[in-house]
Amino acid sequence: MIVWLTGLPCSGKTTLGLALIERLRGMGRKAEFLDGDVVRRELWRDLGFTKADREENIRRLGAVAELLGRNGVITVVCVVSPYRASRDNVRSRSTRFLEVYVNAPLAVCEKRDVKGMYHKARAGELPGFTGIDDPYEPPLAAEVECRTDIESIEESTSKILEQVQAALGDTGTAAAMKG
Amino acid sequence: MIVWLTGLPCSGKTTLGLALIERLRGMGRKAEFLDGDVVRRELWRDLGFTKADREENIRRLGAVAELLGRNGVITVVCVVSPYRASRDNVRSRSTRFLEVYVNAPLAVCEKRDVKGMYHKARAGELPGFTGIDDPYEPPLAAEVECRTDIESIEESTSKILEQVQAALGDTGTAAAMKG
Repeated sequence: MIVWLTGLPCSGKTTLGLALIERLRGMGRKAEFLDGDVVRRELWRDLGFTKADREENIRRLGAVAELLGRNGVITVVCVVSPYRASRDNVRSRSTRFLEVYVNAPLAVCEKRDVKGMYHKARAGELPGFTGIDDPYEPPLAAEVECRTDIESIEESTSKILEQVQAALGDTGTAAAMKG
Repeated sequence: MIVWLTGLPCSGKTTLGLALIERLRGMGRKAEFLDGDVVRRELWRDLGFTKADREENIRRLGAVAELLGRNGVITVVCVVSPYRASRDNVRSRSTRFLEVYVNAPLAVCEKRDVKGMYHKARAGELPGFTGIDDPYEPPLAAEVECRTDIESIEESTSKILEQVQAALGDTGTAAAMKG
């Protein structure tokens, strides 16, 4: 199964993704974390941030995630993935796909600005930055939506976990006992 | 675990790889097949056949295989992978790596010429073709060597399977019963 976390930069994808991985592994599940930025840097290095390159990055990420997913590994992908069509394309090629919209208002994400990227984008140093001068297309029918500006990490993670378990046909207790 | 089949074009890598996958799945094992040419065509498309591009293809293949391998999927990779250093590099980054030298004399491989590639290479239409005008560096200490010019597919596959099971700590029977 692929659990795909999409949302603006600094919306909380990585935080939730890692918390989810920890919960899943704690339950004895095979789980793997794929971070869009890390994969770009360490797996393939030929892609930039044009629309075509972002789409290609998402296509490749989806293909790698599917290789894992179809082998019983719950694969948690964290990547802005701003374009709806790219995400839907990954969904259509996946055995099992759970879309998680990690949602916080732009103002909140920009205030967090973990790596100072919004600051640079506003200063014109990062052209094509999602949310500033490149669009983010929110999911229309995500399986889970996490409002990270008003929910705790624990609350959001539990919401995702519940959907993962439902998709796997587990109840929470059964899954915990399997672990 | 990664099972890495290296050898000249038409040495029999894909045939053995697919036979191995069938045996492993028949034993109830999670197994995934990664073909170097298919991955080049379908996963990433930016790489050619220069030395640098071949090395990068092998590096990426190794990274994807390791993602699977460390999650308990026996990942069978079939790719010419002509350079010793590239293969050793993948080995050094892998949790578990089994190198299989799929060995047949060049003359035998060239006679098989499944896709007419040797013919084209001899005609000068495929510059940099391994075995013709690009070197193949045989493994110095492969875990398994299969002489596909004198062994049957069954024999070669069994030799590989035996090493896989040894590495997994199985005896043949135990593994079959687990299936």
